[in-house]
Amino acid sequence: MTDVLMNTTILSRISKPGDVKALSMAEMATLAQELRDVIISQVAGHGGHLAPSLGVVELTLALFKAFDLEEDKLIWDVGHQAYAHKLLTGRLDTFHTLRQKGGLSGFPRICENPYDHFGVGHSSTSISAALGMAVARDLKGEDHEVIAVIGDGSLTAGLAFEGLNQAGDLGRKMVVVLNDNEMSISKNVGALSQFLSRKMTTPFLQRLKGDVEGLLGSIPKIGDDLAGYAKRYGDSVKSFFTPGILFEAFHFTYVGPIDGHNTAQMVKVFEEIRQIDKPVLVHVMTKKGKGYEPAETDPTFFHGVGEFVPETGLARKFSGLGLPSYTSIFGSTLCALAERDKTIVAITAAMPEGTGTECFRKNYPERFVDVGICEQHAVTFAAGLATQGYKPAVAIYSTFLQRAYDQIVHDVCLQNLNVNFFLDRGGLVGEDGATHHGVFDFTYLRHIPNIVVMAPKDEAELARMMVTAFAHEGPCAVRYPRGTGVGAKVSRNPAKIPIGTGELMRDGSHAVIITLGSRVYPAVEAAMELEAEGLEVAVFNSRFVKPLPREQILELAARFDTILLVEENALAGGFGSAVLELLAGEDALSGRRVQRIGVPDEFVEHGTQKELRAMIGIDTAGIKRTLLAMCGK
Amino acid sequence: MTDVLMNTTILSRISKPGDVKALSMAEMATLAQELRDVIISQVAGHGGHLAPSLGVVELTLALFKAFDLEEDKLIWDVGHQAYAHKLLTGRLDTFHTLRQKGGLSGFPRICENPYDHFGVGHSSTSISAALGMAVARDLKGEDHEVIAVIGDGSLTAGLAFEGLNQAGDLGRKMVVVLNDNEMSISKNVGALSQFLSRKMTTPFLQRLKGDVEGLLGSIPKIGDDLAGYAKRYGDSVKSFFTPGILFEAFHFTYVGPIDGHNTAQMVKVFEEIRQIDKPVLVHVMTKKGKGYEPAETDPTFFHGVGEFVPETGLARKFSGLGLPSYTSIFGSTLCALAERDKTIVAITAAMPEGTGTECFRKNYPERFVDVGICEQHAVTFAAGLATQGYKPAVAIYSTFLQRAYDQIVHDVCLQNLNVNFFLDRGGLVGEDGATHHGVFDFTYLRHIPNIVVMAPKDEAELARMMVTAFAHEGPCAVRYPRGTGVGAKVSRNPAKIPIGTGELMRDGSHAVIITLGSRVYPAVEAAMELEAEGLEVAVFNSRFVKPLPREQILELAARFDTILLVEENALAGGFGSAVLELLAGEDALSGRRVQRIGVPDEFVEHGTQKELRAMIGIDTAGIKRTLLAMCGK
Repeated sequence: MTDVLMNTTILSRISKPGDVKALSMAEMATLAQELRDVIISQVAGHGGHLAPSLGVVELTLALFKAFDLEEDKLIWDVGHQAYAHKLLTGRLDTFHTLRQKGGLSGFPRICENPYDHFGVGHSSTSISAALGMAVARDLKGEDHEVIAVIGDGSLTAGLAFEGLNQAGDLGRKMVVVLNDNEMSISKNVGALSQFLSRKMTTPFLQRLKGDVEGLLGSIPKIGDDLAGYAKRYGDSVKSFFTPGILFEAFHFTYVGPIDGHNTAQMVKVFEEIRQIDKPVLVHVMTKKGKGYEPAETDPTFFHGVGEFVPETGLARKFSGLGLPSYTSIFGSTLCALAERDKTIVAITAAMPEGTGTECFRKNYPERFVDVGICEQHAVTFAAGLATQGYKPAVAIYSTFLQRAYDQIVHDVCLQNLNVNFFLDRGGLVGEDGATHHGVFDFTYLRHIPNIVVMAPKDEAELARMMVTAFAHEGPCAVRYPRGTGVGAKVSRNPAKIPIGTGELMRDGSHAVIITLGSRVYPAVEAAMELEAEGLEVAVFNSRFVKPLPREQILELAARFDTILLVEENALAGGFGSAVLELLAGEDALSGRRVQRIGVPDEFVEHGTQKELRAMIGIDTAGIKRTLLAMCGK
Repeated sequence: MTDVLMNTTILSRISKPGDVKALSMAEMATLAQELRDVIISQVAGHGGHLAPSLGVVELTLALFKAFDLEEDKLIWDVGHQAYAHKLLTGRLDTFHTLRQKGGLSGFPRICENPYDHFGVGHSSTSISAALGMAVARDLKGEDHEVIAVIGDGSLTAGLAFEGLNQAGDLGRKMVVVLNDNEMSISKNVGALSQFLSRKMTTPFLQRLKGDVEGLLGSIPKIGDDLAGYAKRYGDSVKSFFTPGILFEAFHFTYVGPIDGHNTAQMVKVFEEIRQIDKPVLVHVMTKKGKGYEPAETDPTFFHGVGEFVPETGLARKFSGLGLPSYTSIFGSTLCALAERDKTIVAITAAMPEGTGTECFRKNYPERFVDVGICEQHAVTFAAGLATQGYKPAVAIYSTFLQRAYDQIVHDVCLQNLNVNFFLDRGGLVGEDGATHHGVFDFTYLRHIPNIVVMAPKDEAELARMMVTAFAHEGPCAVRYPRGTGVGAKVSRNPAKIPIGTGELMRDGSHAVIITLGSRVYPAVEAAMELEAEGLEVAVFNSRFVKPLPREQILELAARFDTILLVEENALAGGFGSAVLELLAGEDALSGRRVQRIGVPDEFVEHGTQKELRAMIGIDTAGIKRTLLAMCGK
């Protein structure tokens, strides 16, 4: 990194948008290369979102050059492509701290920099946020620009459509830059994406005239053979479509598609559209991973990537990294179960690789559905499948399933349908930080009637919970952490777990830890260390957040007067809260000292999972410390 | 009602879809009138969703006639228009129980009838659910139809777009009937709705040819004056659009628009499109309230209506109904506050009347935004406004705000923005039932860092909480019930409430009730009645779910060994749960008997609010009963 920085002749002189405006086009080209060098060097050393940020280097420069970003508001959708933006806004010196505890966030954040106008991490918020800023500007009588940059993947989400629909209606001056790389994280899906890729060509326009004449001969007369009419109409009209027509339908002025790696051309376009006093959509074609051959070749791998060797693009190997991830255990188990049970259908929201369902897609393509970045639709679609006797496996990261909370309540749980949710990245996810931690799921799920909520202590229990979920009539959720497990061997025929039963991991006499999921083994380790200090601590793996193993917990509460509840979830309304509710309802609290540790009532920043778990005191040392204090030692 | 039923010569012979298929067109016309008579009579007597159901009488009949609903799956979006569907599927005899406790639901429900294929209440789920059923059908190798009927209002929600986008992509045989009445509950908004209303006309088609020729002369050359190009392009292309082009862009075969009150024509169209083996959208024009003049004239009032005089359409007056609703107190207070504070912006999601913001629209049109049925966008748009120093008031029913849970977390609370949520219909809403109760909001809000969550005991406290929310830097939520308050006089200058402070409503010596919101006065009444039986019970109005009045509650816990926590919210993770967390964290539980009453862990059915509150034991009698039991009496 240091070497790379020393070689930046231009970047090192840039600390604010105005510095970019002063550059010549030749300097801009050099700057583009320097940005790429710094980004590749940093991500190779520490991991991060490489391919998205490489793809928008020229676009970023063009926006900085053409707009006046001291006044204009630039909003990045998702924000994983904003590394060049960070480097151009005074964060070169701290860029080496990216995604590290106490360092720069991997995403734009209002509190990090005055040029970050909207914090982000989840997709498809930019048009709505930009429209809010445009309305605010007009209320104040100001006249700056508001620019949202959104990918074609993010545009598939309903929220983006809602924003587009109203932006067109209100007609406020704003710019939406569609960063079209024909990808979300994976290959993009949906009718819209096919539509966008039908680029406007001269032969197409020449065909247009003949098509229209054909159309004019087929003015609909109700009573005709409508099926035949529809076919003729469809055949002739379909070839009309250009992306422009779609956005014009939403009252946007459409410009494009233009080359997203031709800085001069983009600057010219952006400068010209500044004259237009209504919503404008600029369609920019970019290549994800541009300028780094390994990332151009495999943009999905390099979307978000760990450390790699920059010269080869090969991932660095770490000691101890031989264990499979929860994600891969989930994927292989799902495939094995689907072989035996033909009613299992796998659903992903644009993340076949991230959720481990890629192998399912290969093995059972007819039972695999990638819905795009559409968590709401994923869940309601699954509910529709379930009404017909299928067992959908909805595999969505904990933080993204937040988008489908109402569909889980209204479409799945209220109808008690057999939809199974698999929440990867439950708990603290590490470097992606506050927008991505999956620390609310116990709370946002357990209060919904009819659902079963589980969290496995290791890979083998994950497989057993999957079997349990598919065997259970009604909705189930299984949440598991990012990363690898403990190396527990997964049975070829995992046994069902009786719903609402936990297991005593070890017995004791002085205190009991009641926990589940990722915290079970740290609790056991803490108990083992405490034994050396004369404290005999029992550890109970509850396995279920809902329904709780009532009788087992009540028996433990009868035996122990010191009870520690541990979870990797928000303390408010989480697992420990559920246990308190049970104990209070059974009048089992008197004479008991009950404490809870978990995620406190604040948003947790980025850092490694290990650092963050230590910080909030739910690692082995933290559990031990709390128990010692509870026992007066 | 009885008279009306006695006069149904055809309806009384219909008990299943097949019975409709056997009718002649003349009989269908009579049946349409009979359906209207029964629906008007029932709703006039007991309230319900009148205008939506009247608008689709002919559409319902045409669907029953053209399709084979013994096999085909018919899915109604929202479901408030399904009264004719209910009457034609064996529910004539029980129709008089509609929306009453133990009677028929106001919406389709799988558990109510074999022809209700998907339960509903919230909008925009039908395309996703239907697509799930279509995929299931194809996996099974069956060949029935799947038909979703969705209004143009519901189509504005992102979820519907997500479903449409994937349905077009997958290309499965399915039918989407767009029931276009140019309304949601109020007048529809958004670019899409303006687009839909540009109906296809012959003069339009004749204009097309010239426009295209103009277009051909303007093939884009990058480097031209793009602003000028865009204008020319826009001007010429815009007049191309027909609703068909939009849906064809999503790979749907488009048919329409056709007259939704011409049954014979609709039957012919539906029969013909059954031949098409891909997604088809039939655009049907209907009139909301059709066939009942008062409802045609004021479809918003008659969307969901209380009892009225059928001859005149005038609402019946009830004794004691002189009090203003919480909704109207909210609306008038918001207007008064906005007069003094020019940074207040009101946002509604297609419900200006329902949320009481209609007066705001009239007084401050420039600061009023109706986003359509787009709760997600409403919240992110509000976040954008708040970044620029505005104070958005997002007025959305508790149950519908569930749709924006992630936006509340990710866009508002994580950035600690000054967005204020006003959740009308918090708690049990009564006759709309399980899909509409607002009983999860304490839980889905209180675990989110940075937000303040309040619930007023009466109208005056609502106004004070509104003042408190706007004065507070950061997100706030105020939730209040459906219906009227207690008649508390609202101050012209409501005083702020210090954040996190409650009030002792009355003192006592034997026990304390800690509660808030709608349960404060019933708790006081219970305490007064208990006094007569020798129990002196204190009542504390916590006012805040978050932050709790910690010190006040801990003082009470120190004084009383019998504590009853009462709320109109799910017990799981709700207010009582928060108090338990506080007491456990402070080791204040020993020697205390703490019980919680609220909404148990099941979906609550429909009935009057009074019936439902009594059923779950949170009315005065229930509170009294629980306290007597706790005190061993």
